[in-house]
Amino acid sequence: MIYPKLLQGLIDYLKKLPGVGEKSAERMALSLINMDASEISDLSNILVLSKKGLKKCEICGALTEDNICTICSSDTREKNLICVLEDFKGVFAFEKSGKYNGCYHVLDGLISPIDGIGPDDINISSLIKRLENLNNPEVIIALKPSIEGETTTLYLKKVLENKNIKISRLSYGIPVGVDIDYLDELTLFNALNDRKDIS
Amino acid sequence: MIYPKLLQGLIDYLKKLPGVGEKSAERMALSLINMDASEISDLSNILVLSKKGLKKCEICGALTEDNICTICSSDTREKNLICVLEDFKGVFAFEKSGKYNGCYHVLDGLISPIDGIGPDDINISSLIKRLENLNNPEVIIALKPSIEGETTTLYLKKVLENKNIKISRLSYGIPVGVDIDYLDELTLFNALNDRKDIS
Repeated sequence: MIYPKLLQGLIDYLKKLPGVGEKSAERMALSLINMDASEISDLSNILVLSKKGLKKCEICGALTEDNICTICSSDTREKNLICVLEDFKGVFAFEKSGKYNGCYHVLDGLISPIDGIGPDDINISSLIKRLENLNNPEVIIALKPSIEGETTTLYLKKVLENKNIKISRLSYGIPVGVDIDYLDELTLFNALNDRKDIS
Repeated sequence: MIYPKLLQGLIDYLKKLPGVGEKSAERMALSLINMDASEISDLSNILVLSKKGLKKCEICGALTEDNICTICSSDTREKNLICVLEDFKGVFAFEKSGKYNGCYHVLDGLISPIDGIGPDDINISSLIKRLENLNNPEVIIALKPSIEGETTTLYLKKVLENKNIKISRLSYGIPVGVDIDYLDELTLFNALNDRKDIS
């Protein structure tokens, strides 16, 4: 073992983070060790506090410090427009875009028969209940174009139809900044299917 | 503010780590929040313990959990061969290579008149004391080829000469995996100067 045990332990923990390999974990651990003791104890506290203090909004499932998130408790958001997301990280992505003024509903997963995840294992019933109490609700399904994402979208479409709810899903297609010749076949196929009439 | 305050605090801390930008810090923070509470408290503890438990070896200055590091207290290392390094991270780099069986001496800095760092501000006197107690000592200076590195190397050469000590420095030259046409001028100049006779 090259590193002292404590340092190796820290490296092993950091390696669990997304996008952090052996080399970056080592650099990060050595840099952490070089921080002041006060900074280290601050970081250590904020880690525990974040885990303890952050919970899911009782209405939409977004990450929040209160029982109800700032979006659900805001007066200026459109309450009858609900964007359905796989997990709470999507909320931050939408909020960053600054282009959306509706509310959210986090499913906390996708239907995946292979993994034994059915409609009852994700937050679909709470979505239906929410929609029943809204006036002229509109649902935007924002799930990724994978088998699980599309299965879930189809399921939602089925359970929400005939309820006078406007339903749409995000368009699938070419992301910004990518050359057509580097696109995978499925994305190209989706972009073709979702093509927009500009005539 | 898009993120809850606690989460933003965590992101701000993670951004201080080397190689971690806004985007990676966000991903890492969200992934940390998703860990089990027990894992979080483990990580938090190990952070504080690492900072408290790791200190500098009293002989060579390498990072260790004990007063004397495993290298200095080992019976199988060559005690009269000393590799001089700028900081303790270099020790791990050498140990990983597995090609070196001597000991180390960490200077904890380089001479830098511009920054007001003189020979007395780094661990040079302790190196001289160590060498005086050794039989036929040999010193390998492993400092980077920068102004500070070369100034320090020259200074060490001056204070150690006429003491019957064999002194060498690492060769400067072309790193593995780099195309010649991408090399900076100084590296190329150094590689030319340090060229090896193979006739």
